[in-house]
Amino acid sequence: MNNSNLGKNYIIRLSEYKNALSRFKTLGFVKVFSDNLADSVGVTSVQVRKDFSLFGISGNRRGGYLVEELIEKLNDILGKNEVQNVVLAGAGHLGTALTKYKGLEKEGIKIVACFDIDPSKIDKKANPPTLSFDELFEFIKKNAIKIGIISVPENAAQEVAEKMMSAGVKGILNFAPIKLRGIEDCIISYVNIELELENLIYFVNATQKSKKNKGGVK
Amino acid sequence: MNNSNLGKNYIIRLSEYKNALSRFKTLGFVKVFSDNLADSVGVTSVQVRKDFSLFGISGNRRGGYLVEELIEKLNDILGKNEVQNVVLAGAGHLGTALTKYKGLEKEGIKIVACFDIDPSKIDKKANPPTLSFDELFEFIKKNAIKIGIISVPENAAQEVAEKMMSAGVKGILNFAPIKLRGIEDCIISYVNIELELENLIYFVNATQKSKKNKGGVK
Repeated sequence: MNNSNLGKNYIIRLSEYKNALSRFKTLGFVKVFSDNLADSVGVTSVQVRKDFSLFGISGNRRGGYLVEELIEKLNDILGKNEVQNVVLAGAGHLGTALTKYKGLEKEGIKIVACFDIDPSKIDKKANPPTLSFDELFEFIKKNAIKIGIISVPENAAQEVAEKMMSAGVKGILNFAPIKLRGIEDCIISYVNIELELENLIYFVNATQKSKKNKGGVK
Repeated sequence: MNNSNLGKNYIIRLSEYKNALSRFKTLGFVKVFSDNLADSVGVTSVQVRKDFSLFGISGNRRGGYLVEELIEKLNDILGKNEVQNVVLAGAGHLGTALTKYKGLEKEGIKIVACFDIDPSKIDKKANPPTLSFDELFEFIKKNAIKIGIISVPENAAQEVAEKMMSAGVKGILNFAPIKLRGIEDCIISYVNIELELENLIYFVNATQKSKKNKGGVK
């Protein structure tokens, strides 16, 4: 876990470079320079070259990279050249939006099944199917699923996480606004939309107030 | 901006304490100790008391806090005792899910209008209404909106952000997987679901591989 945390920043940057490269590719770029990537991602070009050198990626004599080749290499590092099957618990508004989200598929991430406790939401013929929560454990085991998404209400999240982990899930992305108690070999990431908005509101209010105190807006 | 970043961590913790307190309240707690909050949020109790003391909050002689009173104080600090009106650009699956998300309302955050470029999505009578993107600028100005959420495709995000900022928005929560070029007095936060999942997948794969190399799973 400590190693993972240590390395988290450069992996985030590699993902960001890759996303920037996809945009460059869409725009018809064949070659990019570390400056282009640095500008897109908001780091220095030295940082870009440093991150690449960690994985033995080097540009040509003038510091240019072939877009296609670089995407391929980054996908390889990020394990994106194979489709990653994922399960989702909680077929509410957010969960359903995630299953329909084109962005995931583009990144080779496939939600293969949803699970919900509400019988009215069960739909085995949908794509992906929504199954009963009772089937979660077996499904994960049978299909050797390693990644789970949790978008259930906060009071159900811990139970769902435990069920996922006991079936073999090693990584959880949790949207419920609650800290999960994990087990040692499972990585838990959080997306807390309320918290992000709350913080934003706090800082905007604080900035506005301090401006007023300083005698008005510039 | 630097001040905001410096202070971000304790504000995140204050929000987390407040969420934990809401859960305690639901469970019927009248009083909590810093240990209870520390356990819920995953920090030490020393940290909890330190964070509170920054804002002049102190417990009773035995280190206990009254739940109701503490929630009130935290709401005051976080600016949560008044409803915060927010606009949302992009009424796709994710945007629509956000407007229906109960969690925001509970936190005093109200999406007062959505905006979309697609005429088939316009619905002035819905709650919140979905309006034409052409009305975004005027709406923000007229209603003095300070916070915007962006859930449009990545190629439209920068334009939408600029429109929001020019109309007076000071804080943006961006769901589009692209770094936005902001202006000095606007704070931009990111929720990048693909990136979170990608990182999770990378670390799970890396951990599994290193276990295999070490001679199998324990």
